[in-house]
Amino acid sequence: MRQDFTSLAEFIEIIQELPSPRVSAREAAAARDACLTKPPGSLGRLEEIAAWYCGWRGHERARVEKPQVIVFAGNHGVTAQGVSAFPAEVTGQMVANFEAGGAAINQLAETFGAGLSVHALGLENPTRDFTQGPAMSESEFVDALMKGWQAVDSKSDLLVVGEMGIGNTTSAAAISLALFGGEAEAWTGAGTGVAGEALAHKATVVARGVEVNKSSENNGLEALRCLGGREIAAMAGAMVRARTLRIPLILDGFICTAAAACLHVAQPGALDHALAGHVSAEAAHPKLLKILNKEPILSLGMRLGEGSGGALAMAVVKGALACHSGMATFAEAGVSEA
Amino acid sequence: MRQDFTSLAEFIEIIQELPSPRVSAREAAAARDACLTKPPGSLGRLEEIAAWYCGWRGHERARVEKPQVIVFAGNHGVTAQGVSAFPAEVTGQMVANFEAGGAAINQLAETFGAGLSVHALGLENPTRDFTQGPAMSESEFVDALMKGWQAVDSKSDLLVVGEMGIGNTTSAAAISLALFGGEAEAWTGAGTGVAGEALAHKATVVARGVEVNKSSENNGLEALRCLGGREIAAMAGAMVRARTLRIPLILDGFICTAAAACLHVAQPGALDHALAGHVSAEAAHPKLLKILNKEPILSLGMRLGEGSGGALAMAVVKGALACHSGMATFAEAGVSEA
Repeated sequence: MRQDFTSLAEFIEIIQELPSPRVSAREAAAARDACLTKPPGSLGRLEEIAAWYCGWRGHERARVEKPQVIVFAGNHGVTAQGVSAFPAEVTGQMVANFEAGGAAINQLAETFGAGLSVHALGLENPTRDFTQGPAMSESEFVDALMKGWQAVDSKSDLLVVGEMGIGNTTSAAAISLALFGGEAEAWTGAGTGVAGEALAHKATVVARGVEVNKSSENNGLEALRCLGGREIAAMAGAMVRARTLRIPLILDGFICTAAAACLHVAQPGALDHALAGHVSAEAAHPKLLKILNKEPILSLGMRLGEGSGGALAMAVVKGALACHSGMATFAEAGVSEA
Repeated sequence: MRQDFTSLAEFIEIIQELPSPRVSAREAAAARDACLTKPPGSLGRLEEIAAWYCGWRGHERARVEKPQVIVFAGNHGVTAQGVSAFPAEVTGQMVANFEAGGAAINQLAETFGAGLSVHALGLENPTRDFTQGPAMSESEFVDALMKGWQAVDSKSDLLVVGEMGIGNTTSAAAISLALFGGEAEAWTGAGTGVAGEALAHKATVVARGVEVNKSSENNGLEALRCLGGREIAAMAGAMVRARTLRIPLILDGFICTAAAACLHVAQPGALDHALAGHVSAEAAHPKLLKILNKEPILSLGMRLGEGSGGALAMAVVKGALACHSGMATFAEAGVSEA
């Protein structure tokens, strides 16, 4: 299996040879679960999560000890179309806020003991307005995928990828429309807070993006290149890198899930190492999760991005593994069984 | 306001004079939220939780720094009716498991930085089988309420109360039936794992309990005394103590919510300082939460008790307050607004 790539062809080679979980570790974890001091099934979804995680880590009694949150930031040429409630300069300002420790994701990463890395991707050089043609050239696209790939700490044991990029719900909506069809309106949501006529306009921009980039239709990597942003492509690169390292992944919101959807279309099963951290308030997110067949862990009406929903779900995953690996068995504790 | 009680009359006096949240702190928290570096509303439910919590703590920028989980354990005479999949001796065995650190709640409390206290309440002396008459005398009942009251650490800033008691879903079902009527079957669930004929039998035991204890009908404190167990009464005592100290409370599953329901019926608004941590897999829990008008934070199919669902929700509350109190404002971070 390739450990690196320098071209799109090599990246494609990697996603065609993704590793699988260790079935034996998963089965051993399920067998351990059946012996723990609790009625069978009484930890509900935590039990499934624990066995799934153990399978990916290749250890029947794994724990989450070194989680990583990566936030990628990118600027979008499509903001020229007036699709966001916030000015494009906010992307860079928020990167400074991440670096100073002032954003929501800083607080969540600290609260749940995750390392946080922030990568600003050529903010001074936005991607091309996708209503005028492909957002990125192939070399720009490969560069963004590589940035994501390289950002993953190979020693981490759970990954959340998040994003910041004014305009990027427009990009995620266009990707979704290109991949799964339907009406642009059904994929277009409020983002940072557009409504009414501005929202209707946003949907026409989304539709135009797909019309202009025909090659993106039903083509995961072309949709990512032509309609994505650097931060969205980097998220996809990081997701694939996590998979090659058997690091379980927690998806965040709509934009993160759109990046995942590109991989899913390019290679079915590419997201088998991922859980959906939450379902966001962004209108089309539930639809995208359903297509990916991912049941969200949390549903709290969040729609911030930055990896915030994923980081919160990380706490649940951490708790699930703490129970699984830390609890006594009936025999160890001398507790009578049913 | 009374700081203690020695009789049921004095306990009733306390629940009739419960303190309210500080509206000014809640409003100041909401005003602060509007200035934080995120689109308005984008942290969804976390924002509501933070403002609510700040109101109860009387501080616009509160944090969760000293959460406490208390597990009460009690034995139930009604187990003589064969209502549980596990033998009654498991209650005491599980208390030993809590004390040795081997149960699910130990792992969750440790993972999320909560102090854990365990109180075994006269396990050698089960409550009376409530199909034969009231489970507790008034003095036994007051004693259990006091045990709960005294177990709360006045310095804690968030409380989860949980329970262990073989037979106590039967007790919680009987309480629910006495308070809210309907069919016994609708309140009776699998508990630790009964099904089929055993489940039907459990429902008849529940119905008989209410028939035998007519005074419990629509009477919160009588239902708690006649159909509860010591651990259920102690949970109610701890909930009231938390309220007098303005310590926000997170409810756990069906049994914990049944204890809360007794207080709710005895004194509407008595649970205003409580959030529902999760909705459990126990069939009647969603119904009980709806009556209490509590929207659960988590829905993960858990049904273990011990405070486990509440402890997991504690992580969400902790994250909500970390964001609220730790984030930079637009002005502090120099980020442009919408």
